[in-house]
Amino acid sequence: MSDSNQPSSANPITPRDQVADVDHTDLFCPKFDEHGTIPAIATDAHTGEILMQAYMNREALLKTIETGNAWYWSRSRGKLWLKGETSGHIQRVVELRTDCDQDSIWIKVESQGAGACHTGHRSCYYRKLPVGPDRSSAPSPNRLVSTEERAFDPTKVYGSKH
Amino acid sequence: MSDSNQPSSANPITPRDQVADVDHTDLFCPKFDEHGTIPAIATDAHTGEILMQAYMNREALLKTIETGNAWYWSRSRGKLWLKGETSGHIQRVVELRTDCDQDSIWIKVESQGAGACHTGHRSCYYRKLPVGPDRSSAPSPNRLVSTEERAFDPTKVYGSKH
Repeated sequence: MSDSNQPSSANPITPRDQVADVDHTDLFCPKFDEHGTIPAIATDAHTGEILMQAYMNREALLKTIETGNAWYWSRSRGKLWLKGETSGHIQRVVELRTDCDQDSIWIKVESQGAGACHTGHRSCYYRKLPVGPDRSSAPSPNRLVSTEERAFDPTKVYGSKH
Repeated sequence: MSDSNQPSSANPITPRDQVADVDHTDLFCPKFDEHGTIPAIATDAHTGEILMQAYMNREALLKTIETGNAWYWSRSRGKLWLKGETSGHIQRVVELRTDCDQDSIWIKVESQGAGACHTGHRSCYYRKLPVGPDRSSAPSPNRLVSTEERAFDPTKVYGSKH
């Protein structure tokens, strides 16, 4: 095992093939998928609400850990993405967790600005679907229902296309 | 557009290519990835804590919506999976949401049993990594730290392999 494979303050990631028990180890060895990305879930550090789920590649994950601001990999644009670089709604990471098999990241964030979603909502998850045996009694069992009003005007933050 | 493509109580899913504005529509048109799956995040309906993140295929998603219990697609085992079928820790879905571009699912669940994780923890996300500019002052900046004790003995619930 070379020194470069040891976690360091510059590189807290340990290569996964060098970790025997991913589920219980204290070594951070995230699993990147075939696209080189790992899903990352951002929740509001104060309300606990899920704000968004996006993806990080290795570089975005390292930048997030180092800077304490949330960086993602935009699969649609094929580029590294500092959340808030357009909107100003930077996400300051209060806590970063990984799950048992280390193929998912959870960050608790303090968001600077009104919301996380390009639609103007606080959370990207602003619509719900009736669920379970009683859903047939819902007014529209098969329609999404909005759970919140917009928190900001996206045309003022992102421009006219939203 | 044929009748079979209309959402119905038996099939609340609308084909995505028939929806003009995924981000704002009230039609549910989830995006399944190249494996036919969509990430699904389960949070505790009472504490808000993220319990786990797994994947649903179309059938698991439909069964979840119909029955109100969380079903997933196990990518490692290649099979449909009722959460709790082994452990008894069934997840009753209180609310189901999707995000703006409908490529992620959030379910709020009431879990029957002590925990969601096969390691015996309440949440799969039971380890955190120091993050941000101050992390160098952490006792072990590059080591995962456990955030909670085990909630149950996994060998009693899952057998001897955990």
